[in-house]
Amino acid sequence: MAETKPVNLAVVGATGAVGEKIIQLLENRDFPINELKLLSSKRSAGKKVSFRNQELTVEEAQPESFRNVDIALFSAGGSVSKKLAPEAVKHGTVVIDNTSAYRMDQNVPLVVPEINEADIRLHQGIIANPNCSTIQMAAALKPVQDAFGLSRVIVSTYQAVSGAGNAANDELENQTRQFLNGEEMTAAQLPVKDESSHYPVAFNALPQIDTFQENGYTFEEMKMINETKKILHHDDLAIAATCVRLPIFTSHAESVYLNVDQQDVTVSDIWDVLEKTEGIVLQDNPDTQTYPMPLSSSDKEDVFVGRVRKDLDEANGFHLWVVSDNLIKGAALNTIQIAEHLNNHNWF
Amino acid sequence: MAETKPVNLAVVGATGAVGEKIIQLLENRDFPINELKLLSSKRSAGKKVSFRNQELTVEEAQPESFRNVDIALFSAGGSVSKKLAPEAVKHGTVVIDNTSAYRMDQNVPLVVPEINEADIRLHQGIIANPNCSTIQMAAALKPVQDAFGLSRVIVSTYQAVSGAGNAANDELENQTRQFLNGEEMTAAQLPVKDESSHYPVAFNALPQIDTFQENGYTFEEMKMINETKKILHHDDLAIAATCVRLPIFTSHAESVYLNVDQQDVTVSDIWDVLEKTEGIVLQDNPDTQTYPMPLSSSDKEDVFVGRVRKDLDEANGFHLWVVSDNLIKGAALNTIQIAEHLNNHNWF
Repeated sequence: MAETKPVNLAVVGATGAVGEKIIQLLENRDFPINELKLLSSKRSAGKKVSFRNQELTVEEAQPESFRNVDIALFSAGGSVSKKLAPEAVKHGTVVIDNTSAYRMDQNVPLVVPEINEADIRLHQGIIANPNCSTIQMAAALKPVQDAFGLSRVIVSTYQAVSGAGNAANDELENQTRQFLNGEEMTAAQLPVKDESSHYPVAFNALPQIDTFQENGYTFEEMKMINETKKILHHDDLAIAATCVRLPIFTSHAESVYLNVDQQDVTVSDIWDVLEKTEGIVLQDNPDTQTYPMPLSSSDKEDVFVGRVRKDLDEANGFHLWVVSDNLIKGAALNTIQIAEHLNNHNWF
Repeated sequence: MAETKPVNLAVVGATGAVGEKIIQLLENRDFPINELKLLSSKRSAGKKVSFRNQELTVEEAQPESFRNVDIALFSAGGSVSKKLAPEAVKHGTVVIDNTSAYRMDQNVPLVVPEINEADIRLHQGIIANPNCSTIQMAAALKPVQDAFGLSRVIVSTYQAVSGAGNAANDELENQTRQFLNGEEMTAAQLPVKDESSHYPVAFNALPQIDTFQENGYTFEEMKMINETKKILHHDDLAIAATCVRLPIFTSHAESVYLNVDQQDVTVSDIWDVLEKTEGIVLQDNPDTQTYPMPLSSSDKEDVFVGRVRKDLDEANGFHLWVVSDNLIKGAALNTIQIAEHLNNHNWF
C-alpha cells in the first residue's frame, strides 16, 4: 500500500461516550494525524483533553470549523449531523457519520470495512457508520453468507445502556445505588430521553430502544433490519429484530437465528468460516463453559461468537450468540477503520 | 363444582425461594387446608414459619413424613424429588413436583391448568409442574395455537436469577455492591452451582442456564423445547430456544417468534385471542410506551404479553414479548393451581 498522508482530523461530539472512545483508540493507533480538532456543543466547549502528549481544547462545532479538515468523525447525534455534515462537505471534508441521519440515503455508503470496504470509494462526501447492534451482527453474518448463502435472520438483542450515551450509564449506576439503599429508583433517560415515559433499567429489561415506528417496530429494530440488508448488499434477506435494553454498561449481546441456502452445512462448517474471518473471535466450547459475555468482551476490538448450534428442526437453520463492545467495534473503532481505509486508498 | 374437602398439604423445600412463595400465596388463597406440613433439608429444619395465624415448625423431610398427607408440593431440587416422591406416593400422597425429575416421564402429566387441566386426572401419583420459562411461554402460545394453529416457535429468553434460588439472588446483590464499591465481583452460584466455572451475572449476560447437553443446547433450552411440545400436545411443533441469565431479580422475559398455520391472521386477531384468555394480560400500546417489563410484572399472578408484531417477511409470522413472575406463575402459583384443580375435581 502506498505511503499515507497525515490528515487533519476532526472529532465532532468529542466529549460524548463515542467521541471519548474515538480519542482513546486514536491515541495508540498507527493512524497518521497532522492535526486533531476536537469539537462539541457550546456547553462542552473549553474542556481540555490530552492526546499524544499534547493538551487539546475542545471547541464549539460551527460551520466554519471544518476549514482544512480532511476527515470529520461525527457522533454528536442526528440533528448535529444533519446541520453540520453538509457544511463540512462544502469545505471538502469527508464526513464519517456515526448517527442514523444518512445511513439509508442511497448516495451514502454504509460501511463495515471487513464487509464492504469497496463501498467507501462511492462516497459523495459522507460515509455512514452503521448502528452498533447492526455492525456486530453483520460482521458475523457476512462470512456465513459468503460461504453458504443466507436467506433468513431473526435476532433478539441484549443491549448495553452505554449505547444511549454517558447519561444512561450514569442513570443505571444511580438506580443501582438507589435500589441497594432501599430507595425508589428514578428514571429520566431510558428507554428514550425525549419521550414521555421513563422506566428504570436496573434489574429490569426494557423492550424499547429508540422510538416506535408506524409498523409497531422500534426505530432500533428497523435500523438492524434495513442497515443489515444494505451492508450485506442483500435486499431480499428476510430479517426481523426485537431490541431490548438491559442493565449492562458495555457490550451488546445478540441471539441470532439464521437460515443458510445450502442444506448440508454443519456446525463445524460455520466454526471454520468464522474462525478464518478477521475481526471475529470464536469462543465456543460447552465442555469448558466457554462462550462470549458482555463483561469478557468489553474494551476489546473483536466481535465474539459462540453457542453455535444447528436448529433441531430445520436442516439449514443455525443459532449464534454474538457479543461485542458497542462503543468500540460498534461505534468508535469502526468509524476509525473507515477513516483509515479512506486514507490508505486515498479515496477522498 | 362440588364442595371440596380440606386437605393435608405438605410443602417440601419450604425454606427455598419457591417454597417460601408457595406458603405466601397459600396464606390468602381460598384453598381448604386441614393441616400444612412444612418440610426441608436437615439443615433448615427447626425454622419457624407463621401461616394463617399459626406458628409452624419446619421438619426434616423423611420417607415417613408423608403419612396422612393428601398432596405434597415438591420444590427442593431434582435429587430430593427422585428420592422422596416415590415414598410419598407409597403413602397415597399425590405429589406435585416442581423439579425436572419427572417432567418428561410418559406416566407423569405435565400441567399448566389453563392449558391442559384434563391431563391431571391421568396421574399415577405424580404430577409435574413445568419449568418456569416454559409455563409463561406455553400460556401465551396455547390460545394462538387453538385459534390459528402453530407450526414454529423460536424463543430467546431474558431470565431472572431467582430461578436459580435464593443463593443466586444474594449473589447478584453482593456482586452489585462489590461493583459499586470498586471491588472485584466474586461468583460461586451462576451459571450453574455445581460446575467448575462461575461468572458474575451483575452487569452481564450469561448464555448458559443449567448444564450443556450433547447436542450443544443447555438443559434449560431442551426443557423449553420438550416440555412445550408435551404441554401443548404438539409433538410436531418445530421449536428452538436460547436461554440467557441476566441481572434481574424476578420475572423472566421472552422474545418469541412464531408461525401460525393460517396465512391471513392479523395482529388484532392475536390481540383478540390473548385478551380473552384467563391468566393473560395484554400490555401492548406503542403510542403510550406500554409493554410488559420484569419490574412491572413482579409479584403479579398473570402472564403479560406485548410487542405483538407481524413479521415483515412471513405472512404467518409474529413476534411477541412475554413476561411473568418466574416464582409465581412460573412456579409456586402453577403448583398450587394444579393442587386446587386436583382437589376441586377430586382427581386423587
